[in-house]
Amino acid sequence: MKPLLQIGRDAKTAAGTLAILSTVKKNEVLAAIARQLEEQTEQILDANQRDLQNGRNAGMREALLDRLALTEERIRGIAEGVRQVITLPDPVGKVTEMVTRPNGLQIGKKQVPLGVIAIIYEARPNVTADAAALTLKSGNAVILRGGKEAIQTNIAIAAAMQRALQECGIDENAIQLLEDTSRQTANELMQLREYIDVLIPRGGAGLIHAVVENASVPVIETGTGNCHIYIDESCDETMACEIVYNAKTQRPSVCNAAESLLVCRSIAPKLLPKIKESLDRKSVQLRGCPETVEILRCDLAEEEDFYKEYNDYILSVKVVSGVDEAIAHINKYGTGHSEAIVTKDYFHAQKFLNEVDAAAVYVNASTRFTDGFEFGFGAEIGISTQKLHARGPMGLNELTTTKYIIYGNGQTRK
Amino acid sequence: MKPLLQIGRDAKTAAGTLAILSTVKKNEVLAAIARQLEEQTEQILDANQRDLQNGRNAGMREALLDRLALTEERIRGIAEGVRQVITLPDPVGKVTEMVTRPNGLQIGKKQVPLGVIAIIYEARPNVTADAAALTLKSGNAVILRGGKEAIQTNIAIAAAMQRALQECGIDENAIQLLEDTSRQTANELMQLREYIDVLIPRGGAGLIHAVVENASVPVIETGTGNCHIYIDESCDETMACEIVYNAKTQRPSVCNAAESLLVCRSIAPKLLPKIKESLDRKSVQLRGCPETVEILRCDLAEEEDFYKEYNDYILSVKVVSGVDEAIAHINKYGTGHSEAIVTKDYFHAQKFLNEVDAAAVYVNASTRFTDGFEFGFGAEIGISTQKLHARGPMGLNELTTTKYIIYGNGQTRK
Repeated sequence: MKPLLQIGRDAKTAAGTLAILSTVKKNEVLAAIARQLEEQTEQILDANQRDLQNGRNAGMREALLDRLALTEERIRGIAEGVRQVITLPDPVGKVTEMVTRPNGLQIGKKQVPLGVIAIIYEARPNVTADAAALTLKSGNAVILRGGKEAIQTNIAIAAAMQRALQECGIDENAIQLLEDTSRQTANELMQLREYIDVLIPRGGAGLIHAVVENASVPVIETGTGNCHIYIDESCDETMACEIVYNAKTQRPSVCNAAESLLVCRSIAPKLLPKIKESLDRKSVQLRGCPETVEILRCDLAEEEDFYKEYNDYILSVKVVSGVDEAIAHINKYGTGHSEAIVTKDYFHAQKFLNEVDAAAVYVNASTRFTDGFEFGFGAEIGISTQKLHARGPMGLNELTTTKYIIYGNGQTRK
Repeated sequence: MKPLLQIGRDAKTAAGTLAILSTVKKNEVLAAIARQLEEQTEQILDANQRDLQNGRNAGMREALLDRLALTEERIRGIAEGVRQVITLPDPVGKVTEMVTRPNGLQIGKKQVPLGVIAIIYEARPNVTADAAALTLKSGNAVILRGGKEAIQTNIAIAAAMQRALQECGIDENAIQLLEDTSRQTANELMQLREYIDVLIPRGGAGLIHAVVENASVPVIETGTGNCHIYIDESCDETMACEIVYNAKTQRPSVCNAAESLLVCRSIAPKLLPKIKESLDRKSVQLRGCPETVEILRCDLAEEEDFYKEYNDYILSVKVVSGVDEAIAHINKYGTGHSEAIVTKDYFHAQKFLNEVDAAAVYVNASTRFTDGFEFGFGAEIGISTQKLHARGPMGLNELTTTKYIIYGNGQTRK
């Protein structure tokens, strides 16, 4: 296995050549990657079988085995995902805000690749190809570090992609996979300041926390979402029930699912039973504040329930005095991901949009829409919950930085 | 003295109110700050005298004492700087890219303040007012941590600013100064993840390094500049001499001054003596590669000279084979700040602009222009040499982040 430092150095060298590739060439490589993934289906499925067998031997849960398992159809889907990246506009090279200064200097701001992107992710092997396609299209070299459960599959996918790079005459270090999945090597990766321009962790709160604690390279935090729905006094009650039901149950395991419901006191006695009735269809467990418990006879929430991202059919519920208390509660307990108000009141809607501090703030819609595809980016590398560089769903644009380019004719400073 | 945790908490509370202040109100506060700074001139000068006396007692160098010293005129200048921020456009609230998605959701990207900004800086007390004015105009609360040499002056300036905040009915914790200038408290500040959204260190390499090593809050690195001028084979020789002279000597102590000269081999024997002649006017010490030494009989550079930011009348010089070697050298030894080529060759100019990896890349101009004022931003909080969030001179725009605001009418996800 190549030592980590060498992987970093090679990635940086590859980044230099990727940064100046034309869009046409990058799209040619993406097409080759998609083709190679399909051509290597058998090898990838074989590798996947080994991972699944290891998982079963280690007593892996059925749900996780399912996330790990590939089929011919899933591999076609992965290849199709790579082909879709071909259709996305190339973010590299756009020059915005070119101005001519009084002294004649022409100063433009040009979008350029970040350089070397490291991605640490968990079980799902499709991320290996998805992330590589997006980083390549945005002109970046990538170092992938997937979970040990999927290592054989990831190696096979990476090999297919590198074969495509070779075929197109591109430095195959543009896409590298860490075959060593030890925690120690992951920690060393987080410290590789000399070679890594940004590290994007994709996974649960544990992974994000480990990265934030250990990383000295710049990090874009993704994914933890304690999302709220606040039901205002003046609301369409049917809409309120539908949005809560959708945000909680449509896919409870993801970060933009609702974890907490806030209801205005004046309508709580009337509305909460209706909401409960709709959530009962999916047997959602409610954990309420004392007022909620009085109305619904549900379980009592502890203080820490309001901080929790359940990722499950569980919802914390709190009765609040109105929009101000709702905003204060969200800004205290939330993770700055996605927050929604259901209201007919114009001023409450505007207040909520202005004062809630989160990546995505909704009026009268489900929080489940916070997603690169739903936002129209065509793809997504993750959802940033931090404020620097990128906030919310990250598409190709967020994988670039800028540099100022300046055309002069001999200007010196007075 | 208020404990640091309380300072952080208070800043976060103040940030909530600042984020929704109108531009009119923020400008009113800035005007009040400028007025208070002028009205408190006597108190500020008294405090400054105490700092100067302490400095002299501690054997501070004359140059540093000069940077620390305020006069009535300098205070007027500081107040004038605050008034200029009034004239700058407010970056907060601009909504870009509002689209209507096929399902009717209207999704817009809104510029919003970062929240709480901490700034660690060194001797110059004018930064106290400059930084506060810029963070206030961009709707952020600020925690200022200046150098201990200027602590009395900084306390007096901060008191004048807080008086202005009170006068305008604004939470005075919008601008807070750490009166405790111990290193330990600075380190604690760098760890205050719960309350600080971004930390901007302004100072020398030592400060930047300490911050990058110790900080767990998000950091925007600023200011270290090992800037190069590359003189291409086909160049206007007079222009080359002027640009090198300007970039090295116009103000050698700053980060956008040139530290290293690269010259194409074919013109080195003819051009280097001319450049030396021009630099001799300021007694610039040259440290050259062996070929340079042969031509100029100057000192021999060691390998590490090429990594150095001298901030002094010293210049490293290297003869290279052409634009490719120049780019490779810059990308290896540079700090990604400002880099320039002097050339008549169209393709070399474009190659240099495309392949040099730096915040600002120049053709035929001095590197000294990398500056918020020279770029037309009207102000500058620092010059970022990192790739995330902001790169190059940072004005008011760079002190904001975005949030997605979404207007729906009951949309749920299928």
